[in-house]
Amino acid sequence: MIIQFKTPVNTAILKQVQAKLEAIPSHVVVVGPHMAAIGVKDVDLTDEEKGAIESITTNEPSYATTSRMFQPEDTIITLPHSVIGGDHFTMMAGPCSVESEEHVMRMATVAKEGGATIVRGGAFKPRTSPYTFQGLGEDGLKFLRAAADANGMDMITEVMDVAHVDLVGKYTDIFQIGARNMQNFSLLKEVGKTNIPVGLKRGMSATIDDLLNAAEYIAAQGNRNVFLIERGIRTFDNKYTRNTFDLGAIPVLRELTHFPVIADPSHALGVTRYVTPMAMAAVPAGAQGEIVEIHDDLAHAFSDGPQALKPEEYKDMTRKVFALRKLVTELNEQTVAAD
Amino acid sequence: MIIQFKTPVNTAILKQVQAKLEAIPSHVVVVGPHMAAIGVKDVDLTDEEKGAIESITTNEPSYATTSRMFQPEDTIITLPHSVIGGDHFTMMAGPCSVESEEHVMRMATVAKEGGATIVRGGAFKPRTSPYTFQGLGEDGLKFLRAAADANGMDMITEVMDVAHVDLVGKYTDIFQIGARNMQNFSLLKEVGKTNIPVGLKRGMSATIDDLLNAAEYIAAQGNRNVFLIERGIRTFDNKYTRNTFDLGAIPVLRELTHFPVIADPSHALGVTRYVTPMAMAAVPAGAQGEIVEIHDDLAHAFSDGPQALKPEEYKDMTRKVFALRKLVTELNEQTVAAD
Amino acid sequence: MIIQFKTPVNTAILKQVQAKLEAIPSHVVVVGPHMAAIGVKDVDLTDEEKGAIESITTNEPSYATTSRMFQPEDTIITLPHSVIGGDHFTMMAGPCSVESEEHVMRMATVAKEGGATIVRGGAFKPRTSPYTFQGLGEDGLKFLRAAADANGMDMITEVMDVAHVDLVGKYTDIFQIGARNMQNFSLLKEVGKTNIPVGLKRGMSATIDDLLNAAEYIAAQGNRNVFLIERGIRTFDNKYTRNTFDLGAIPVLRELTHFPVIADPSHALGVTRYVTPMAMAAVPAGAQGEIVEIHDDLAHAFSDGPQALKPEEYKDMTRKVFALRKLVTELNEQTVAAD
Amino acid sequence: MIIQFKTPVNTAILKQVQAKLEAIPSHVVVVGPHMAAIGVKDVDLTDEEKGAIESITTNEPSYATTSRMFQPEDTIITLPHSVIGGDHFTMMAGPCSVESEEHVMRMATVAKEGGATIVRGGAFKPRTSPYTFQGLGEDGLKFLRAAADANGMDMITEVMDVAHVDLVGKYTDIFQIGARNMQNFSLLKEVGKTNIPVGLKRGMSATIDDLLNAAEYIAAQGNRNVFLIERGIRTFDNKYTRNTFDLGAIPVLRELTHFPVIADPSHALGVTRYVTPMAMAAVPAGAQGEIVEIHDDLAHAFSDGPQALKPEEYKDMTRKVFALRKLVTELNEQTVAAD
Repeated sequence: MIIQFKTPVNTAILKQVQAKLEAIPSHVVVVGPHMAAIGVKDVDLTDEEKGAIESITTNEPSYATTSRMFQPEDTIITLPHSVIGGDHFTMMAGPCSVESEEHVMRMATVAKEGGATIVRGGAFKPRTSPYTFQGLGEDGLKFLRAAADANGMDMITEVMDVAHVDLVGKYTDIFQIGARNMQNFSLLKEVGKTNIPVGLKRGMSATIDDLLNAAEYIAAQGNRNVFLIERGIRTFDNKYTRNTFDLGAIPVLRELTHFPVIADPSHALGVTRYVTPMAMAAVPAGAQGEIVEIHDDLAHAFSDGPQALKPEEYKDMTRKVFALRKLVTELNEQTVAAD
Repeated sequence: MIIQFKTPVNTAILKQVQAKLEAIPSHVVVVGPHMAAIGVKDVDLTDEEKGAIESITTNEPSYATTSRMFQPEDTIITLPHSVIGGDHFTMMAGPCSVESEEHVMRMATVAKEGGATIVRGGAFKPRTSPYTFQGLGEDGLKFLRAAADANGMDMITEVMDVAHVDLVGKYTDIFQIGARNMQNFSLLKEVGKTNIPVGLKRGMSATIDDLLNAAEYIAAQGNRNVFLIERGIRTFDNKYTRNTFDLGAIPVLRELTHFPVIADPSHALGVTRYVTPMAMAAVPAGAQGEIVEIHDDLAHAFSDGPQALKPEEYKDMTRKVFALRKLVTELNEQTVAAD
Repeated sequence: MIIQFKTPVNTAILKQVQAKLEAIPSHVVVVGPHMAAIGVKDVDLTDEEKGAIESITTNEPSYATTSRMFQPEDTIITLPHSVIGGDHFTMMAGPCSVESEEHVMRMATVAKEGGATIVRGGAFKPRTSPYTFQGLGEDGLKFLRAAADANGMDMITEVMDVAHVDLVGKYTDIFQIGARNMQNFSLLKEVGKTNIPVGLKRGMSATIDDLLNAAEYIAAQGNRNVFLIERGIRTFDNKYTRNTFDLGAIPVLRELTHFPVIADPSHALGVTRYVTPMAMAAVPAGAQGEIVEIHDDLAHAFSDGPQALKPEEYKDMTRKVFALRKLVTELNEQTVAAD
Repeated sequence: MIIQFKTPVNTAILKQVQAKLEAIPSHVVVVGPHMAAIGVKDVDLTDEEKGAIESITTNEPSYATTSRMFQPEDTIITLPHSVIGGDHFTMMAGPCSVESEEHVMRMATVAKEGGATIVRGGAFKPRTSPYTFQGLGEDGLKFLRAAADANGMDMITEVMDVAHVDLVGKYTDIFQIGARNMQNFSLLKEVGKTNIPVGLKRGMSATIDDLLNAAEYIAAQGNRNVFLIERGIRTFDNKYTRNTFDLGAIPVLRELTHFPVIADPSHALGVTRYVTPMAMAAVPAGAQGEIVEIHDDLAHAFSDGPQALKPEEYKDMTRKVFALRKLVTELNEQTVAAD
């Protein structure tokens, strides 16, 4: 059951209704902009209470608080140097792995020059084979922090392990949850207990509902600073691209949830020369930002070289993406104005 | 083996080389802008012949004449009222099915007003169930032809059957081969024997190579007026959209083949309100046109109602798509200029 | 609407009800063991009529006459030398392509020795590339017919084209519809107009409902001698096997339809050494027969060499499959007896 | 590089070669039955060393020690009451979740009566939604331990979290890694540091290579008591079954790795009445055991009710599976004898 209250919310009545719902055994009640009582099908309300309520939905989705029914307004995540969500468009860029103090510093500067306000880089790397480079660990976190600070940027980095949440949290502005961990529910709960924003990547074969339920795992712990990352899904054809970029999921997600949706064309395509056109394509699809990999020496990249943009390619991409974003916003505003 | 000749091609020498290749038993030799001898690995050339040749590729793909190796320049298809391919951007619109003379006439006028030069409509419909509307047949062809002529447009309509190629060919400017018939090789060969342009839809689970090989079936018969249509693929998630729109296939196809690539957001998404954003997304991805469904009375559409754009929505979509196309062209030209 | 009549069916009343249903405009009424009026939701019945009726289903599937609601009993297809369906288990074997008169004769003899009663072989071949061997055509049909006759067997061969239905029908006992043509609706209708049994292969990405609807296209024309062939589906992993053998579809199909279900482990796996274990696995899954490729000289097979069984491997496979079939039948009978 | 030594292995020479390989910087050397030096392409050997070596493979897969090249013989996992691997066939059964002390005790007794030697049950449950039952936690472990001990059985239970490895390890004989955690690399490493056997479930969209690489993560830490569980993959059709049971992966896995392969028909199908036929199908496919869910009161099961076998169904299933296993073994032995 999701109850939308009339605004401004009558807090006394909200508390009254909350108490009634909490009295129903074995159910979870969440209070946010509105109120969700997961699985509750009926509640006895007074006329006064009914008067304070806008609408009641009883067939809410299992990802109740993640849905737009619970919160019609876009979630806006505010960081020291960036804003994610709503009408903002946020660029995140950096190397796949943090490779050295100097390298990540150089890459952060490039990222900033191209318009990014968030620098990315992996210190703990999930790799298909146990024998490939697994990341610099805490050193990587320090180097990335320094690179972000020196450039007046925020940082995002992957946390792979419940045991690392504290450590990574000491350094990062945003936790990234990788595609392979999208249903690592222990990890989702753990980052959900912090108040650090979380960028949640869609799993390789995760349905849209799976992704929203994974976000709900985080939100249910109280951390509602979540954004979603579309990074390509696994299909029957991966000869020419690493994954199938599911851009059609973006307008769907924008409709179903208030959490921001970011596009990751680097992992979705896996081939440098397709990253720019598809980063552009993500803009009219409704992405509220992009996260891309950059590298100045692909031949010697520690990981994922073939999909990184070189500095000049990256700046060409952001030039195009920002120009496109401006036009798309204008075109969409004209549609609204005409209605 | 694909042999690229130096331009201007020395025709005498080309004929000489062709004769040598044709003397090799059980191989197919195709002469186009350049020459392909399918499966031939070696040929003895004189110095004079070598001098007239730009390059020789021996590991050509099975879709030899469809590949850019055989023809580096974009295929341009010229119709009475439209051009498809190269730097042109072509809008095709119309109802899913031809429903009546009046209705398709009205829809063609709407299509034209929104900037389309080609009107689409099904007279023979491939339907999952044998008990649903199968199309008006020849009457449908007549009505669509009349609607195209009255509006100064070209027409495209599906041919489902070898036995109908002559009949449909009497009326249409372009054959459409539907997704379910993409590997109906008899049909591909039959339309390949005509000189009517063919719009070939990607099969639901066709790989990029499958699609290019299907195009090769047509081209191998001599009809090189082929364009490809990306219309979504079948994946594990179809709860919110009918298919997964594989926009990432567009830059890949543009690279591998000289045939034009058109986007079909209507079938890819299957939901009206996602068609416009995704039609826009197809533009920076590199689509050279769009084919969309329109209808002015969705509740009474004979087929596929839930994905058609209403006339005003359609015009809003084309306004946005054309504006986007203009900007994307400019942005890409600036990149080229900067190199 | 599917109406099951009490048995023995009161024919006079059945005709009465049929007349009522046929009077409802634009609906299809099919009379078989029972009666289906596609899409009809309501009919006015007298008490006498009601008394002759066992049950009425109004939410029938679109594949109405293919479903067990329309015909609870297994379809049994009787051929001169074979029976398909019900408790029968039917072995079909032969080369992928008919390669020569002598070769197919030799292969038919091997097939027969291993227990097959039906010999398979392609005279018209659907090939991904237009430049690979496309079959011997009518000569192939003649050779296969001769091989079947000489060994007292029935023959099955693929028909790819509406224009070939008559020609192929002159020779064959069973039409095979290939996976790529599963939704070639014109072809389905055409073979549906004959009374020659049809083996319908599941398309590469066909859902179970798609397959049943394709069968309905044939049955709706009056040809109810149809059997279904599971031959593997396309998924994200085809590194080690050509397709994913969807054996779990077999018990589902057995439940939903009365048409027989045959397994094709050769195409499903695409690798000789996996064919025998998976042919065995198909038996307890509920397959009512197998269709396999055999060849005595894999290195020189015209097509699909890597998946064919050599004669001795084939006989080892059938020995195992028949032994397994016997045990599975006994075990299942004990379960029924215990209930 | 994988070096197979002649048997009996000359230990002195093996140590000599190991020292040489370990001197090559930044590579991992693993000594097992044979020796793997991951990524090493060349090593200088004396004639004496060469004489002690059977074969050297330089293009080893990334899952080096998991492959049959590293260990040609089947891994055999010996537990107090069970043996997994080789020619053994191991039955594992129990409820999806541990629901209460009494219930799991009753279910373990049923499991034992049907021939299982290992009882399964979840104490920590990975659930798509955060609001569904998440398991009894440590109490669940205690109840399952008691049920196993009382029946002279081993227990298997899922560990979802690095932080729980010690706790779960105190109670269980076998760790289960669930499909959603198959690429939770931190967790794989952590269970790899214990010497408790691990049952690793294939991820929903994991390729065969992904699964083997995940096993390698465990094995690379020193724990080589690993077995693999095929539990169905995600494909385009899940209308009638929860997943697509990829039985064809079983003979492939048996060939590529020495680790045992177990079938999980309960999760693969998700529908009780398909579990028995598909459990049977897994036997000739080469499964070395089964893991199934049982429940005596489906309507009140805490989770996954629709796929559990009732006690009598379970015993009917094992009767059939054991009988089939006996026959398949005999049939395969006859093939070997005939060669």
